[in-house]
Amino acid sequence: MALTPARTMPGVLELLPLDQIAFQRMLDVIRRNYERFGFLPVETPVIEFSDVLLTKTGGETERQVYFVQSTGALEQGEKPDLALRFDLTVPLARYVAEHEHDLSFPFRRYQMQRVYRGERAQRGRFREFYQCDIDVIGKDNLSVRYDAELPAVIYSVFRELDIGPFTIQLNNRKLMRGFFESLGVADSEQQTLVLREVDKLDKRGADYVRDTLTGEQFGLSIETAQKILDFVQVRSTSLQDAFDKLDALGAGPEAMEQGRAELKEVLGLIRDFGVPETHFVLNLSIARGLDYYTGTVYETTLNDHPQIGSICSGGRYENLASQYTKSKLPGVGISIGLTRLYWQLRDAGLIATGQSTVDVLVTQMDEKQLPAYLALASELRGAGIATEVVLEGGKLGKQFKYADRAGIRFVIVLGEDELAKGVVTVKDLRREDQFEVQRSELIKALRVELAQAEVGR
Amino acid sequence: MALTPARTMPGVLELLPLDQIAFQRMLDVIRRNYERFGFLPVETPVIEFSDVLLTKTGGETERQVYFVQSTGALEQGEKPDLALRFDLTVPLARYVAEHEHDLSFPFRRYQMQRVYRGERAQRGRFREFYQCDIDVIGKDNLSVRYDAELPAVIYSVFRELDIGPFTIQLNNRKLMRGFFESLGVADSEQQTLVLREVDKLDKRGADYVRDTLTGEQFGLSIETAQKILDFVQVRSTSLQDAFDKLDALGAGPEAMEQGRAELKEVLGLIRDFGVPETHFVLNLSIARGLDYYTGTVYETTLNDHPQIGSICSGGRYENLASQYTKSKLPGVGISIGLTRLYWQLRDAGLIATGQSTVDVLVTQMDEKQLPAYLALASELRGAGIATEVVLEGGKLGKQFKYADRAGIRFVIVLGEDELAKGVVTVKDLRREDQFEVQRSELIKALRVELAQAEVGR
Repeated sequence: MALTPARTMPGVLELLPLDQIAFQRMLDVIRRNYERFGFLPVETPVIEFSDVLLTKTGGETERQVYFVQSTGALEQGEKPDLALRFDLTVPLARYVAEHEHDLSFPFRRYQMQRVYRGERAQRGRFREFYQCDIDVIGKDNLSVRYDAELPAVIYSVFRELDIGPFTIQLNNRKLMRGFFESLGVADSEQQTLVLREVDKLDKRGADYVRDTLTGEQFGLSIETAQKILDFVQVRSTSLQDAFDKLDALGAGPEAMEQGRAELKEVLGLIRDFGVPETHFVLNLSIARGLDYYTGTVYETTLNDHPQIGSICSGGRYENLASQYTKSKLPGVGISIGLTRLYWQLRDAGLIATGQSTVDVLVTQMDEKQLPAYLALASELRGAGIATEVVLEGGKLGKQFKYADRAGIRFVIVLGEDELAKGVVTVKDLRREDQFEVQRSELIKALRVELAQAEVGR
Repeated sequence: MALTPARTMPGVLELLPLDQIAFQRMLDVIRRNYERFGFLPVETPVIEFSDVLLTKTGGETERQVYFVQSTGALEQGEKPDLALRFDLTVPLARYVAEHEHDLSFPFRRYQMQRVYRGERAQRGRFREFYQCDIDVIGKDNLSVRYDAELPAVIYSVFRELDIGPFTIQLNNRKLMRGFFESLGVADSEQQTLVLREVDKLDKRGADYVRDTLTGEQFGLSIETAQKILDFVQVRSTSLQDAFDKLDALGAGPEAMEQGRAELKEVLGLIRDFGVPETHFVLNLSIARGLDYYTGTVYETTLNDHPQIGSICSGGRYENLASQYTKSKLPGVGISIGLTRLYWQLRDAGLIATGQSTVDVLVTQMDEKQLPAYLALASELRGAGIATEVVLEGGKLGKQFKYADRAGIRFVIVLGEDELAKGVVTVKDLRREDQFEVQRSELIKALRVELAQAEVGR
């Protein structure tokens, strides 16, 4: 039989086991923190009806959808009525609308699953990737206070992920829109276009944006364009500085005043949530590409790696599920695109290959003693120590080499000598060290070693 | 805008949050046990190239495949070259063949992901479901001892899942084939057909199988058919009984002797792995539908719920990835179809809706004290207690009702009185009880309550 080349499609990130362990650790940290803040787990099917998935969106996203057909439907030449989800927000909207009467509001859910986009294959672009989302959904209304809770979650997650100093950047779409109104850019579509240009500030620079705004398309005066540029370059250095800078913007139309009041309340509460002032700032350039957001918007960046861009973004929206239900469901949410983040962090050398989840390898020195090895392994597992036993003997040196290659740090040797003396030899392959311990003391000794190894990671 | 009805496709299991928590708990138990036995995590993409996915299989499975096309490919009328995986075994074979030189053998992996089958929609049949697999893959060869390790993992998993008494049933395909040879059913294709009939014993009964075997298709003598029926009805009541019954089969051709020797070694080692004799038996009717298995085969059943059928099956195979590589990769594996199992257990009343992952709700008695509530919540979270804070006030009774409905058991009340006295009131909504505790003692007190609640689950 001719061999089929074993390969995956471009644009997916498949990891070797030790990398998968590092990735899984990140997923676990995120989940633990989401749960600690009282968010409830939701999982939705990967496949949705295409008409459900594609109600709202159009353009770019729609062109990137993966459609799904069973063999039968394909043979009958039917148009596919199923598709893979391209984000977790549309499935959330569908979920909340479908189960509205079984949920308690404010509904706080987390969802950590993969999504699919038929992207053109290129470096750093993924067709399958994890999103780790939380949202708080209100019924009819939802206090702006929840907008302050999400930065507290972000802070908690990234502190524990331990990938270097980071800053949560905040803005408010109402403030922006109101400010534009005060400059005479009152049409909401025009505002959206201006916001879209402003969003390019980091990538294209101030000159490019100024030229565009004063150019044919927008026709703004140089003074107005400059005011916009001054506005979007506002950054705070402390909470008080943020308050001062917001006040210094001067009076404006209602939307602006509302946005300013919201931002002040949110910023103050973020501090009350225990987030240090070093970790959140006002940044009036944050607009978020989507027209979806209506109030608070967030981005999070790594201080030492600005090129990575935002590692966690989100914001406040007016109405989650207007395409499925007449109920008004305002909400606020954030999303971590973990596959891309992991890939970028690894690329930047910020993430190492994980240590094995296997704590200990019990070697096989003497085949006849296999029952003793198995009993020892049972004991260790009973104590919560992940243990692998060599079931197929061979030279001890080869067994050590296997452990080393597999990333297993501690190896147990139990030969005739040890059995006679009632001891066990523990080899630390990382420190190239070994010690003997009473059999009855083994679990205690290993726990100490493993705790130290954990700290030293 | 007309509303689109919010709905999922038939054949998927979407859970409400408290059910999702119960499901997630099962996933966590399985993963923890897989890791404790030294299995390493692997995740593979949901989408694979169809030629990679469909090399080996045909017939039934192929007709149930979901094909995938991006919008672009669909518009160009191309035949889909992508498909969703229908199990985790084919992706494992592809993974091992693709990464062969980066893996350490024996390669011990676990994989817990969803798979997709275009099944006809009917009760209890799922189009999307979780499989939780472990496999040990050897290079060139793999000791039969690993066949004894997997029942130890099964035992460990189902003991902790705590869904009632269960029995791991074992057989060996070599023993079966050898036995058939001894009866003159020597042709391997004929053996396969007989095995397939024997596999129907539980569903169709002995008379049906006897009639088929003596009928036109097989033409066996009544005596031979009876010998086969006697063989497949062998069950052991203890390890010694298993040994005795295997011996009582009498001498046979080489395959039979090899199978018997393997079974004896595996059964003896299962005991050495610490599995009680009450939890594993010899059952010579176990054949497994697939022709895939070549040695040991397993099924696991719930003693009190035989109608549920096997809840964890698997076995030994000769060569994992012959379609992708010339390397010989023998292995042994098991699979838990968790979505179906969860659904059946819930249907049988063996699984309750989970308690919320939220341990504590901090209520809002006095809006002005919000910073104090937030500080208290931070403290609790820092101690690992999952805490939700009511950010939008309202009547206290309504806040209690929300907690009760959301499955949150403990509620904290901190009003003017409590603040003045330096105490906190904790309400246990389950026991409809409440107590006052010094603020400094709160974490300790809650930990005791939560530990007790955990035991009482």
